[in-house]
Amino acid sequence: MDLPTLTMGQYSLVFNVFSLTLATFLAATIFFWMQRGRVAPEYRTALTITGLVTFIAAYHYLQILFDWKAAFTLVDGAYVSSGTPFNDAYRYVDWLLTVPLLLIELLLVMRLSRGETVSKGWLLGGLAALMVLLGYPGEISDDPGTRWLWWSLSMIPFLIILYQLFIGLGDAIARQPESARGLVSMARYLTIAAWLFYPVVFIFPMIGLDGAGAETAVQVGYSIADIVAKAVFGLLIYTIAVRKSDAEAGQAA
Amino acid sequence: MDLPTLTMGQYSLVFNVFSLTLATFLAATIFFWMQRGRVAPEYRTALTITGLVTFIAAYHYLQILFDWKAAFTLVDGAYVSSGTPFNDAYRYVDWLLTVPLLLIELLLVMRLSRGETVSKGWLLGGLAALMVLLGYPGEISDDPGTRWLWWSLSMIPFLIILYQLFIGLGDAIARQPESARGLVSMARYLTIAAWLFYPVVFIFPMIGLDGAGAETAVQVGYSIADIVAKAVFGLLIYTIAVRKSDAEAGQAA
Repeated sequence: MDLPTLTMGQYSLVFNVFSLTLATFLAATIFFWMQRGRVAPEYRTALTITGLVTFIAAYHYLQILFDWKAAFTLVDGAYVSSGTPFNDAYRYVDWLLTVPLLLIELLLVMRLSRGETVSKGWLLGGLAALMVLLGYPGEISDDPGTRWLWWSLSMIPFLIILYQLFIGLGDAIARQPESARGLVSMARYLTIAAWLFYPVVFIFPMIGLDGAGAETAVQVGYSIADIVAKAVFGLLIYTIAVRKSDAEAGQAA
Repeated sequence: MDLPTLTMGQYSLVFNVFSLTLATFLAATIFFWMQRGRVAPEYRTALTITGLVTFIAAYHYLQILFDWKAAFTLVDGAYVSSGTPFNDAYRYVDWLLTVPLLLIELLLVMRLSRGETVSKGWLLGGLAALMVLLGYPGEISDDPGTRWLWWSLSMIPFLIILYQLFIGLGDAIARQPESARGLVSMARYLTIAAWLFYPVVFIFPMIGLDGAGAETAVQVGYSIADIVAKAVFGLLIYTIAVRKSDAEAGQAA
């Protein structure tokens, strides 16, 4: 896909949002890892993985930031394509690793039985990886028909994940302690709200949205969706782990 | 905004102050994180966040340092604009992340009830983010009228924060143990003294202060204000956490 010519404001907005996202993920990673001691040992694996998700995302945003800089040259006050392509695949590689982990951190903080954690983990993690893999052949195609085909295929695992989160895990959520139940339920809604952004953006070029404005909106939008889906979601996982640790310590005392 | 031509002394002064600020933030970050074990578990989250603030600032000063280098070329003994713009937005991105966190570290070290920490945290953090966001459209404008408009809008959340610090938190400060009360109160005054620097510097171009001398003063001034607001303020938070930990251990014994 050819890169459009951007105004200085558009180029800088995207660059600064990438930098903001990178700083946010670095800070979030350290926070989750450093605060592991704050929660009961049963929840520390959840925080390790929560920090891994933001760590992997920080790595990819560092690469994306460098790529964005290399992809444009300032000519007469406008940013034109430098000829070096902007590598969109970083996002897919990131999602392939982080999206299964996001579902696994939710399962871990819910503290199901070991058997249930393993079976739901493989099911949800596998579906998430499949969803990302099926989206990619569409992403790199310029043909609307091809894009719609892979978009539709990718939506199948997405819908099964939603079904699992809302029906398959319904019982397990009802069993959560009262102080955490609302937050666990909220984590599901946050997942949907943030994740819905990706298939919508995917459709943009199929309905004629392209050029400088669309490119700017897509990059800023992906960054915000990533912050919500990973760092804000992670804070929710952290808060659930703290509340459950405190509730269980209170019971024990 | 076009960069003025700087003397070698002006360019080097700014560069060296940036480097000093970066070294200070890196050292402060390591100090706050390494000393977490010195305070009672209840205060460790406050120190995690205190270190995150200086960490995020260190990231941005590293970028600012590189940007400053790229923005100038040495020609016949003077530093002239190289054509690569100097990205002022790093400061705003930094403040957007760190200013809410600064208020949250103050709340955490005060150790209010959970409900009060959450409600005051959202209120003060939200106001702080709004204050930074409202400043930015003015910062990137060259029109004095536009700058005054956004400056005035940004001052509204600033004044509400001051009101909250001095009236809203008055009771909570009176409830602090005697050995820490004076320091908690001082943290508020330090916040105001350092934060007042920013709206004053913002006005410089509106009252005709520009050119090489003003650019040098602004960059040096911002760096000093950042060191005071983040590292010196963080040391105060650390000292409060130590005093309160010791006072509470004394009561328990």
